[in-house]
Amino acid sequence: MVDHHCHSVVAAELTDDALAGLLTESDRPPAPGCSPFDSALGLAVRRWCPPVLGLPAHAPAAEYLARRRELGAAEATRRLLAAARLDTCLVDTGLTAAAGRELLPLTELAGATGAVVREVVRLESVAETVASGAEDWPRAVGEALAAAATGAVAVKSVLAYRYGLAVPAERPARPAVVAAAGARLRDGRARLADPVLLHHLLWTAVDVCAELGLPLQLHTGFGDPDLTLHRADPSLLADFVRAAEPSGVPLVLLHGYPYHRQAAWLAQAFPTVYTDLGLTASYTGPRVAAVLGEMLELVPFGKLLFSTDAYGLPELFSVGAAQFRYGLGMLLSDWQAGGACSAPDARRLARLIAADNARRLYALR
Amino acid sequence: MVDHHCHSVVAAELTDDALAGLLTESDRPPAPGCSPFDSALGLAVRRWCPPVLGLPAHAPAAEYLARRRELGAAEATRRLLAAARLDTCLVDTGLTAAAGRELLPLTELAGATGAVVREVVRLESVAETVASGAEDWPRAVGEALAAAATGAVAVKSVLAYRYGLAVPAERPARPAVVAAAGARLRDGRARLADPVLLHHLLWTAVDVCAELGLPLQLHTGFGDPDLTLHRADPSLLADFVRAAEPSGVPLVLLHGYPYHRQAAWLAQAFPTVYTDLGLTASYTGPRVAAVLGEMLELVPFGKLLFSTDAYGLPELFSVGAAQFRYGLGMLLSDWQAGGACSAPDARRLARLIAADNARRLYALR
Amino acid sequence: MVDHHCHSVVAAELTDDALAGLLTESDRPPAPGCSPFDSALGLAVRRWCPPVLGLPAHAPAAEYLARRRELGAAEATRRLLAAARLDTCLVDTGLTAAAGRELLPLTELAGATGAVVREVVRLESVAETVASGAEDWPRAVGEALAAAATGAVAVKSVLAYRYGLAVPAERPARPAVVAAAGARLRDGRARLADPVLLHHLLWTAVDVCAELGLPLQLHTGFGDPDLTLHRADPSLLADFVRAAEPSGVPLVLLHGYPYHRQAAWLAQAFPTVYTDLGLTASYTGPRVAAVLGEMLELVPFGKLLFSTDAYGLPELFSVGAAQFRYGLGMLLSDWQAGGACSAPDARRLARLIAADNARRLYALR
Repeated sequence: MVDHHCHSVVAAELTDDALAGLLTESDRPPAPGCSPFDSALGLAVRRWCPPVLGLPAHAPAAEYLARRRELGAAEATRRLLAAARLDTCLVDTGLTAAAGRELLPLTELAGATGAVVREVVRLESVAETVASGAEDWPRAVGEALAAAATGAVAVKSVLAYRYGLAVPAERPARPAVVAAAGARLRDGRARLADPVLLHHLLWTAVDVCAELGLPLQLHTGFGDPDLTLHRADPSLLADFVRAAEPSGVPLVLLHGYPYHRQAAWLAQAFPTVYTDLGLTASYTGPRVAAVLGEMLELVPFGKLLFSTDAYGLPELFSVGAAQFRYGLGMLLSDWQAGGACSAPDARRLARLIAADNARRLYALR
Repeated sequence: MVDHHCHSVVAAELTDDALAGLLTESDRPPAPGCSPFDSALGLAVRRWCPPVLGLPAHAPAAEYLARRRELGAAEATRRLLAAARLDTCLVDTGLTAAAGRELLPLTELAGATGAVVREVVRLESVAETVASGAEDWPRAVGEALAAAATGAVAVKSVLAYRYGLAVPAERPARPAVVAAAGARLRDGRARLADPVLLHHLLWTAVDVCAELGLPLQLHTGFGDPDLTLHRADPSLLADFVRAAEPSGVPLVLLHGYPYHRQAAWLAQAFPTVYTDLGLTASYTGPRVAAVLGEMLELVPFGKLLFSTDAYGLPELFSVGAAQFRYGLGMLLSDWQAGGACSAPDARRLARLIAADNARRLYALR
Repeated sequence: MVDHHCHSVVAAELTDDALAGLLTESDRPPAPGCSPFDSALGLAVRRWCPPVLGLPAHAPAAEYLARRRELGAAEATRRLLAAARLDTCLVDTGLTAAAGRELLPLTELAGATGAVVREVVRLESVAETVASGAEDWPRAVGEALAAAATGAVAVKSVLAYRYGLAVPAERPARPAVVAAAGARLRDGRARLADPVLLHHLLWTAVDVCAELGLPLQLHTGFGDPDLTLHRADPSLLADFVRAAEPSGVPLVLLHGYPYHRQAAWLAQAFPTVYTDLGLTASYTGPRVAAVLGEMLELVPFGKLLFSTDAYGLPELFSVGAAQFRYGLGMLLSDWQAGGACSAPDARRLARLIAADNARRLYALR
């Protein structure tokens, strides 16, 4: 199985609260009476992870956390990563810490998962490291991205968080970009939030990806509270998708929920668009088969990819992989039972989504 | 079971058409060949209510209406309200009539339901009773709301109907509010529809709720034809939710359908946000388990509340409670059968949604 | 069964690629490794069509295509159309070719389907044939439409493709229309894309439909890449729906997916609004019952219509009809098994959607 979008994990000990804090998209303390374990994702974690650490499925959260401490974070991490049984992981290196702790370097992540690990470069993070004058910004950013992306398998944008996905069809004009770069220098803000700079950056990514033959991943749909949900509707990308089509660069719309049907339509309408469910499969817990079903209504079977979008917790690798296997298995056995497809069709579809589509798209091996 | 959002009912006799007219969100006469009984809600009414009046489930509408007349509206109302088996009802008193008939006073509703009844004050209705000069409007409205809300358990806003939920992050400035209040006085229109006044009112509610320790309920999602559906998408509230977060006032997003997944994400991302399905559980009839499932994909289990949003007809109390019990029961037994959660998990989740979350949020008993 | 919205088909031989190209909303070549047969619609075609040509269900695409060639396109077309078992087809004559081949004339389509065939006039196509000066445009367009619609059963608009559905509540003023018509003449562009002309045209259709007693069909929801999905959300029509309500003209919202719940709410709220699932039932393949279920949550049972929206391929008639029969059958037997409705209720609902609603709405026979 190829996990085409994930992050590294913390292998150090975490407090119970820090661990629970990685089981929600919120970066705030839980509301009174609430715990991130009391959620669809919490149920999924308690279903799949306790057996990996030698407890029965559905063990209470407190017992699970105690057992995890007893084993030690390093051993628990090793077991949970191995349990995901992944062949290849494409890791977004834009985040370097979780819950204030450093993430495992890619070589150690490779060792613990037993998977081939390849890098996905995060566009905005690369750009934020560029120090240049305003006039030189377009060139400097392009060079920095080309350098960072060489050897990587994809570039990823988090534009959805910074501004939203309503990208105009036209590239920003150079004078506007230089002016915006100048304003940012005067403000002294590292974080890129200006729409002109963000859109210029996205087009820079298109150019670099076209040059290097890489796909461009875009976060779409739900995420942390920094994001405004309706501005992350992938349908808002339509003008950009059309404008970028001649470049031939594949655009991979990550997650998409609750706009995954919109993402699936884009994937059907435009040859350059691909999509995944990402962390949705984990976060929706008992509902994974239903959500996968919605995605498969319009998406071409050659354009849906598997990913865990795991971040911070090794549990999220285990859970992401188990949820995908379970959810797709349930869905396809329902389809067969209802006469909607044959057993060979179901097997082929599962292989495409689990690995073959990603191998073809990212030219793996 | 705590019904955290409902209205009172008509106990007087109603014509068949008037009764049917309370089984749809439309305030227009039905289209040719259509009856509100021919709907998912109609099926739910015919499933749950005939047995309460001594008929078999799925009795035809005409037989049901005849039996209701035979028993008399008062007796039918008594039976239907009691059949809901509610412990506590939080009643929005902003509506005082249905189908041109007065609603039961709260004391009589309490008697007939056997439930503790507490009041939810409707923001815009309170403000529309305020007579004051433009300069004095901000003070007068704040005082009127504080007076009305004292002794109540929550304040509710119907901003979604008046303007939609795209509330700016900033409070309107006093001069703009005074100017808008002056314009309204000159127009002589009682109905509050000006966005500046509406947004000022919402912030007034935040202040009063913070002072009194009350949650603020907001209508979101579908409703009657007065509403424009996409403007009632709760995701549009994101900027307001962030701006109101420091107040600590819980924001309860009512109904939400068909944007209930968006509401659930807000509840996960922001500690102050809660949500319910409200009348959706009744209106979607045979589909209640599926819709509840969608809501439970992202909502923290401590932040989903039960309500009937019953209005006008005692049937809607019976149906709302029965639909919720049936739908959640179906969903959770499916989850257990599929191995997604344990029996104790399912029981605990049901208790949280049915009553415990509301008791904690509204500080009941 | 009355198919209230479809197109004619190509009876000539098609290459395999041309045939596959009619199994997707995309007008682009498929992405590497992708075939339109690898989709939910592809599964549905391979489920229902091979048996019609004497092969087992789920025969591989290559075998199916070989068998189709062996029989000859004319014979395959005859069999596939007859297998749909339709009583009446309302055919949108705005498209005259598919994959570069002419579509069957209506009389031949009637012969092959064994159905009564009636015409639906496409608004924008009629307007694009009008040659007149700018000053005369409003009169000339109204006359051309009235002439074209006489004898037809409905008018259909593809405004969703041209501009999107955010139609203002007010009719464009005559001077603005004349100015826009003049600008179009100067541009020399046949295709109508100016919003003022499009909105004027829509109101012209309302007038003509009111005069002739015809419903007005509107494309909503997904379609080919020419369309921007979120601009085709039927909720955007709310202001227009309210403004057109006094005309009494029924507005039939076609397809709607993935905004079909929004369409269903409009149908509940406004007596003039009707809706269908159209090609969604075919395109979502194994998921047809789930999507139908979503539509039936709010739509009045007297306001949902059946259509195939078949275009180009006779397969799409077979598949559309089979998918509808299968999907609705599955859904209603689930509802009965769960106690949500009685067997007579289920039979009545099926009859309404399959034929009776369309007969009433279009005054057929």
